[in-house]
Amino acid sequence: MSPSAGRRVVDLFAVVPAGGAGTRLWPLSRSAAPKFLLDLAGTGRSLLQQTVDRLTPLVGPDGVLVVTGQAHGMAVRAQLPDLPAANLLLEPSPRDSTAAIGLAAAVLVRRSPDAVIGSFPADHVISDVDAFGAAVEQAAAAARAGYVATLGVRPKYPATAYGYIENGERLEIADAPSALSVTRFVEKPDRPTAAAYLSSGAFWWNAGMFVSRADVLLGHLARHQPLLFDGLSAIADAWDCGDRDSAMSSHWPALARIAIDYAIAEPVAAEGGFAVIPADIGWDDVGDVVALAGILGGPGDVQILGDRSRVLAVDSTGLVAQSGDRTVTLLGVRDVAVLDTGDAVLVTTMADAQRVKDLVAAWRDRGRPDLL
Amino acid sequence: MSPSAGRRVVDLFAVVPAGGAGTRLWPLSRSAAPKFLLDLAGTGRSLLQQTVDRLTPLVGPDGVLVVTGQAHGMAVRAQLPDLPAANLLLEPSPRDSTAAIGLAAAVLVRRSPDAVIGSFPADHVISDVDAFGAAVEQAAAAARAGYVATLGVRPKYPATAYGYIENGERLEIADAPSALSVTRFVEKPDRPTAAAYLSSGAFWWNAGMFVSRADVLLGHLARHQPLLFDGLSAIADAWDCGDRDSAMSSHWPALARIAIDYAIAEPVAAEGGFAVIPADIGWDDVGDVVALAGILGGPGDVQILGDRSRVLAVDSTGLVAQSGDRTVTLLGVRDVAVLDTGDAVLVTTMADAQRVKDLVAAWRDRGRPDLL
Repeated sequence: MSPSAGRRVVDLFAVVPAGGAGTRLWPLSRSAAPKFLLDLAGTGRSLLQQTVDRLTPLVGPDGVLVVTGQAHGMAVRAQLPDLPAANLLLEPSPRDSTAAIGLAAAVLVRRSPDAVIGSFPADHVISDVDAFGAAVEQAAAAARAGYVATLGVRPKYPATAYGYIENGERLEIADAPSALSVTRFVEKPDRPTAAAYLSSGAFWWNAGMFVSRADVLLGHLARHQPLLFDGLSAIADAWDCGDRDSAMSSHWPALARIAIDYAIAEPVAAEGGFAVIPADIGWDDVGDVVALAGILGGPGDVQILGDRSRVLAVDSTGLVAQSGDRTVTLLGVRDVAVLDTGDAVLVTTMADAQRVKDLVAAWRDRGRPDLL
Repeated sequence: MSPSAGRRVVDLFAVVPAGGAGTRLWPLSRSAAPKFLLDLAGTGRSLLQQTVDRLTPLVGPDGVLVVTGQAHGMAVRAQLPDLPAANLLLEPSPRDSTAAIGLAAAVLVRRSPDAVIGSFPADHVISDVDAFGAAVEQAAAAARAGYVATLGVRPKYPATAYGYIENGERLEIADAPSALSVTRFVEKPDRPTAAAYLSSGAFWWNAGMFVSRADVLLGHLARHQPLLFDGLSAIADAWDCGDRDSAMSSHWPALARIAIDYAIAEPVAAEGGFAVIPADIGWDDVGDVVALAGILGGPGDVQILGDRSRVLAVDSTGLVAQSGDRTVTLLGVRDVAVLDTGDAVLVTTMADAQRVKDLVAAWRDRGRPDLL
């Protein structure tokens, strides 16, 4: 497919898929209180609230849609009291990101046929909001030119925990001077491959943000996942002016569980339909305790989430998450992560960050679903 | 002084000085809930209760006296409901072990002039109760022969955290076949000295247990600490049949703060008045997290105090103290000690065991007396 060009300027809508258990941040992140609902940056705002806070100036107060599981509906409403009721889309069961974003696109295109939509994960942090806004503006311009645009985060180190985007030639799109074509999306590489990506200068971290005309995105979906497209279309037809519940129960359970990276990004990039906007926006996915320590960035050798006055660290380095009235004291421990919640305390090391998710399964096996 | 010999057989009384903050076991041990009140062995009985449990068969239900601070009077009564009211001696302020034991001796000698008293710390563990009883029996025999007798624990390793007792010749006391003279008491040695003690075979760990006729002990006190003796005598004269409170407030505050090791043991040993009964009794002072892990001795690489079902340890070694409903999870941490209480969690290492006491001062400096 070659990108279509020169449509009229339309409003940007932001879709925020709020899902994912964040099990590498257990016991902070739980099935009932997942990562996106948590104030992991210690700012007083949850990651979801911060996401909406930085999108609202770009799309207006009615321009943000949140897609989340029914189990989290009340918590999301409580955290986002200004979100219009029509802009909260509740999933009866998890069907992965293509269904979540596709549903939002299908509903939006019926409300606003020329809508440009951007999809932005609810559980990441972005420290440079101005740079983020400028990048999204360019991505929207590329989207209006017919591309699916993504933000490519400049790699700071040879990360093995992120997927990468390889860029091709400059695209010469009006109002998107940074836009480059996307050659391919690649999954999490091993360390030598990541180092080669870093030194090549042509690879970018995939932050999972996509901007596209809604009709363009749905066109890709219709070609690459026609059954998914049909199911979402049936639901969207009923969403605002039909029997939404009946359509949902008829079609939602049968939708394919597939990530948008596989359903859309990889095949459309191969067709030349993807653009990347390189962006230095201070992005972090806060995926594990190492990342959490990184975003806190406070003084001293121990990063603290919570009440600093309740944490005492002597000859120690690492991370402490404090909660409630409880105090945490460290003595002589190095590169440690201590996460203290009401019912659980985890003591581990930065080197074990990736293995924390296994503990959730271990507690499940012990018959403690309340801890998951 | 040469020991007097051949008095009539008298009843043994056990004096249990229940004091000491146990700050190396913070945050388990607190000023309001010191070590002796805690169930550190996980048996369902506190160290104080265990101490009384093993002494009662030796001295009878009315033969145990507990000396403790007024602040702990209610807690001690609650833990020892069968302790006769007359057998609980409350100190208005801490005046160290000579005053505590001397007060008990002075009160007892007035109730029972031929009393033999044994002083046994309230916050140690002894795993071989039969061997302990046999050793106390020999110590009482040596006491009746006029000696101050102590139990010498056979050293298992070159400990630098304990004082030592050096023995001289065999004393040939009837009913105390193991009794040896004491050449000297020595304070905590350095590592090479401790190793030399261990290989000599003539040194024993000082477990702080002393058995003596009350009148003999008070005679030593009168000669070596005459002012302390006078003050305690004035208090004891009023204790059971006078104005106890008035005597206490007149004399107690002026008593010298001195440990019985300095006031009695060292000078009396130099005079030839001390006997040691070597004893293999499974003694441990449970002084720090290393000792605590040692006495727990459960299966696996992580020793657990508390509810085992609430502790999950993966690729970890060390000690976990769990409390209440809370869970503790370890992942990839070695030789760690995690002590979790209602208001404080400590994460440290076995190598830092001796430094834990410094944390109490650090929290005091931070204005948190509630944590001490």
